[in-house]
Amino acid sequence: MRIVEKEGIEYKNPVVLEGLPDVGLVGTIAASFIVEKLNYKEIGYIESDLFPPVMVIHDGTLENPFRIYSAEDGSVVVVLSEVAVPPKAVYPLTTALADWFKKIDANQPVISIKGLPMKDRIDINKPEVFGVGNSEAAVTKLKDEQIELLEEGFIAGTYAMMLRECAKRNIGAISLLAQCFPVYPDPGAAASAIESIQKFISGFDIDVGQLLENSEEIKLKARDLMQQTALSSSEMQKGMEQDMPIMYR
Amino acid sequence: MRIVEKEGIEYKNPVVLEGLPDVGLVGTIAASFIVEKLNYKEIGYIESDLFPPVMVIHDGTLENPFRIYSAEDGSVVVVLSEVAVPPKAVYPLTTALADWFKKIDANQPVISIKGLPMKDRIDINKPEVFGVGNSEAAVTKLKDEQIELLEEGFIAGTYAMMLRECAKRNIGAISLLAQCFPVYPDPGAAASAIESIQKFISGFDIDVGQLLENSEEIKLKARDLMQQTALSSSEMQKGMEQDMPIMYR
Amino acid sequence: MRIVEKEGIEYKNPVVLEGLPDVGLVGTIAASFIVEKLNYKEIGYIESDLFPPVMVIHDGTLENPFRIYSAEDGSVVVVLSEVAVPPKAVYPLTTALADWFKKIDANQPVISIKGLPMKDRIDINKPEVFGVGNSEAAVTKLKDEQIELLEEGFIAGTYAMMLRECAKRNIGAISLLAQCFPVYPDPGAAASAIESIQKFISGFDIDVGQLLENSEEIKLKARDLMQQTALSSSEMQKGMEQDMPIMYR
Amino acid sequence: MRIVEKEGIEYKNPVVLEGLPDVGLVGTIAASFIVEKLNYKEIGYIESDLFPPVMVIHDGTLENPFRIYSAEDGSVVVVLSEVAVPPKAVYPLTTALADWFKKIDANQPVISIKGLPMKDRIDINKPEVFGVGNSEAAVTKLKDEQIELLEEGFIAGTYAMMLRECAKRNIGAISLLAQCFPVYPDPGAAASAIESIQKFISGFDIDVGQLLENSEEIKLKARDLMQQTALSSSEMQKGMEQDMPIMYR
Amino acid sequence: MRIVEKEGIEYKNPVVLEGLPDVGLVGTIAASFIVEKLNYKEIGYIESDLFPPVMVIHDGTLENPFRIYSAEDGSVVVVLSEVAVPPKAVYPLTTALADWFKKIDANQPVISIKGLPMKDRIDINKPEVFGVGNSEAAVTKLKDEQIELLEEGFIAGTYAMMLRECAKRNIGAISLLAQCFPVYPDPGAAASAIESIQKFISGFDIDVGQLLENSEEIKLKARDLMQQTALSSSEMQKGMEQDMPIMYR
Repeated sequence: MRIVEKEGIEYKNPVVLEGLPDVGLVGTIAASFIVEKLNYKEIGYIESDLFPPVMVIHDGTLENPFRIYSAEDGSVVVVLSEVAVPPKAVYPLTTALADWFKKIDANQPVISIKGLPMKDRIDINKPEVFGVGNSEAAVTKLKDEQIELLEEGFIAGTYAMMLRECAKRNIGAISLLAQCFPVYPDPGAAASAIESIQKFISGFDIDVGQLLENSEEIKLKARDLMQQTALSSSEMQKGMEQDMPIMYR
Repeated sequence: MRIVEKEGIEYKNPVVLEGLPDVGLVGTIAASFIVEKLNYKEIGYIESDLFPPVMVIHDGTLENPFRIYSAEDGSVVVVLSEVAVPPKAVYPLTTALADWFKKIDANQPVISIKGLPMKDRIDINKPEVFGVGNSEAAVTKLKDEQIELLEEGFIAGTYAMMLRECAKRNIGAISLLAQCFPVYPDPGAAASAIESIQKFISGFDIDVGQLLENSEEIKLKARDLMQQTALSSSEMQKGMEQDMPIMYR
Repeated sequence: MRIVEKEGIEYKNPVVLEGLPDVGLVGTIAASFIVEKLNYKEIGYIESDLFPPVMVIHDGTLENPFRIYSAEDGSVVVVLSEVAVPPKAVYPLTTALADWFKKIDANQPVISIKGLPMKDRIDINKPEVFGVGNSEAAVTKLKDEQIELLEEGFIAGTYAMMLRECAKRNIGAISLLAQCFPVYPDPGAAASAIESIQKFISGFDIDVGQLLENSEEIKLKARDLMQQTALSSSEMQKGMEQDMPIMYR
Repeated sequence: MRIVEKEGIEYKNPVVLEGLPDVGLVGTIAASFIVEKLNYKEIGYIESDLFPPVMVIHDGTLENPFRIYSAEDGSVVVVLSEVAVPPKAVYPLTTALADWFKKIDANQPVISIKGLPMKDRIDINKPEVFGVGNSEAAVTKLKDEQIELLEEGFIAGTYAMMLRECAKRNIGAISLLAQCFPVYPDPGAAASAIESIQKFISGFDIDVGQLLENSEEIKLKARDLMQQTALSSSEMQKGMEQDMPIMYR
Repeated sequence: MRIVEKEGIEYKNPVVLEGLPDVGLVGTIAASFIVEKLNYKEIGYIESDLFPPVMVIHDGTLENPFRIYSAEDGSVVVVLSEVAVPPKAVYPLTTALADWFKKIDANQPVISIKGLPMKDRIDINKPEVFGVGNSEAAVTKLKDEQIELLEEGFIAGTYAMMLRECAKRNIGAISLLAQCFPVYPDPGAAASAIESIQKFISGFDIDVGQLLENSEEIKLKARDLMQQTALSSSEMQKGMEQDMPIMYR
């Protein structure tokens, strides 16, 4: 697990947003939208033999699927992935990221963006966002921003481990879970998540309305991504499938 | 396998109770109830890459699923888990725990709480509790407290290994097995187990009647837990499933 | 793979009998019966992380499933298991045992007790016993005792490897295979095996008639064991099943 | 992973073409055709315990399935395989090749030949070729040669990793993807790929018309190869199948 | 992988014949027949933890399934197995054998005996034998003896690797492939293979007519072997099956 940064990057106690693909692809959609709208520059990527042998193409340019972006002034860092994290990579990835958050002196709390699958999502106009914090201070922060807490239950996967690994390093961290479709990608949930994130970053202003308008178009693109995600999480487990069908077009 | 204790904990030859999720969730339900009713404080947790990437949330607070509690005066220690122990973790966990019991000079016998699945559980008003001891002294203790012994049969999994590993370190240990439903969580069985435990700890007084009254409510919560347990024991075996569905409601 | 002996055990060039669970459970039934009838004392056990996490209870006492017994005078040693040997443990177990046979200066030939599955077992009144030897001397011994030889075929599993590993250490070894049911436990086959064993040990006198009389009762107990054996050999292969159903009652 | 070269080979900043079997077998067919038509000589092979235990026979001569050819004057190198790359070999192979491209001072961009599966391939007279580049210079080169770029999507497998590993070593690399049948081998797609390759190599003149004429015959041979490829990619994954059926005739 | 030789064996630039079980069991049948008819003596065996835990019994004598025989005068060596080579053992076995061929200064070419499965075998009176050589000299030798060459195709498994490993050590090697049944053992194919072998060894005279006459009897014995072979190649892959059913009768 290698976090590869471009040379000369300076971080100013940055707010860290993390968006990994998961139910509803909420994290990936929200993080990608933020990066695009705010013109964040790519400053690095994450590489591992535990990741599937997949690359992505955007605007004709080859990219790693696990990328790191930064605001021009170094005040915000976004970690995103367009490919699901294979089970074997969950511990190494979250450990490496938490170490890195420490190293760059990340602002607290670190924020993970997630979906909260709802069977009746179709009946929800504006998805609500729930929060989980990994410390008293993080929970207090969530309450201050009037984000409803998850009260009881299990959480699992990368964001559960991210909260734990940050806690072990005394890094406050929260997860924001936007109500979403259990199966389909959900730009509406991503919009709700972004609105919640704005409470945590001063001067963070994103026209979420635009995201909602483009919702239909994004839904189509994201469906491809979703299939890819589904593919890798099931296929990759057996021992990565050779030459997955190309998702182009 | 790391047993992580808070600093400054003092143990006074403590009685150790162990409740891991298994058939009927008897161990988890009983241990959780004891900890809550007696206001035991959390003093540590157990962490391992062999465990599934799962965290739990109680009252909006993030917790490890494998936790250790203690009475204020250090006279009783409770080890509990809300997530099933994956097969690969059975040996490392029981070995680490037995070593730790030695280290904290645990009172003997160490007590594991388990279920004994009965097909006709529905016809049993008050589940009986059976005992297994890992030494002559432990068996004598069970007879003294008039707990019926398992006479013939196989026992398997964490509690079998716990008895063995304790025996290898000359630590007396017993398992208390309360008759329970083979599939559903069983607070009634947990109540019977707690009543038996009271015989082993002086001044250990728990209103089990309350557990029985709340039985219906607990049954609902526990069903979620059961599904989670079922999920992890089957899913985790293939190579932990990425991002299990969230159990929150 | 650790062979753990009690302190102060003395061996006098002992005859070694080995009874591991296999088709018809002939080895386990015969070895257990011998140990019980002749009041052999338990002198050790075999332990390995490659074995399933299973313990057994006899007369309310917890026991390892892989045990070693000895005659009071150290002239006979019995190695028995009540749980099937997982495939991964076959080489380590047979290697460790053969080394140990050398160390205790075992009388030759070492004797393994096995079943020979017959489709028409139901029509056989008194099961015949066939022999395999791992050296010319061992084969001669079988002929001297008028035990019919297996003439052609494949043998597989622990007893095949036991013969090989003994041969590599110049330890004469034989396997006695009693005709048995392919699926059900077979005390009658065990009785035939014991009668054959008596030819190899002077003054070895066991009332096999009693075994045949008790055949029905043993058949019931053994069926439980059989299910356990079946369970472990199939289930254990995938990665030991957590908390197998308890075989009690 | 060993790249074994014949002694005394000289490379003159060679153009490198890489054709591995994949959808439509486009890479293998195109690379084999180039090598045959231009009388390139075999100068080495690639060997690995990660490859399936397979050899090929051409004109009665035994050959490695992973071979390297060179033009007489050392100006062009062709790497081809007739057997699918098992998933476990993807990282080691692409890493070894990228290192080797550096060592032989390969001309840039390195060119991988691939298929782009089209459901409606049957309705396409002349397959189009799309390009992916791993650097700005590589993308510019593609545009200069008027090869349409893949604009958005995922790419996976050996060629995705080849692009990445080359990028990490500052080696410009491109993939040429010819529209092809999703299941059947596609010499027509190979012909289109070769035509595109000609734009990158001065004086590289191949009668593709001949490939198209022979299309039917090659289609038959290639179908065998395809079945072999399918076999290995699925069968090999579980643990290479012993003695696969011979593909002869 | 250990090749264990009896002490004091002398080799005189021996012709090496290799017969491993494969389609039609041609190699095993031919090698066993040669060894029996010419009274070759057993001079060693091959042992590996990668092999299944299987031994064979012939004439009441326990034998390794992987054995090495030699002519009295050391002029011919036969390597045979009665148990299929598990996939994991293919590389270690062929590497060890090729090294050993070098060590004993084997005559060239080394000869592997194989089957070539034919769907219409039932309509073939006298199976033809095809050849593959691993060098120009080996191919010339095949042509000199008027053995038809395999012209195009894939070969896989132990004999493919044997040809390759010998080639890497500059040992000429050939495979003789006799047309055979795809599923049933085929003594007739073995007879054809032996006739072809006679062309390579001066004074090698075997009454193949006898093999053909006994064909029916051998067919029955071999069917057992075939089932065993089938069993191990499929069962062994998952993790060797404990105590396979005994093939005796």
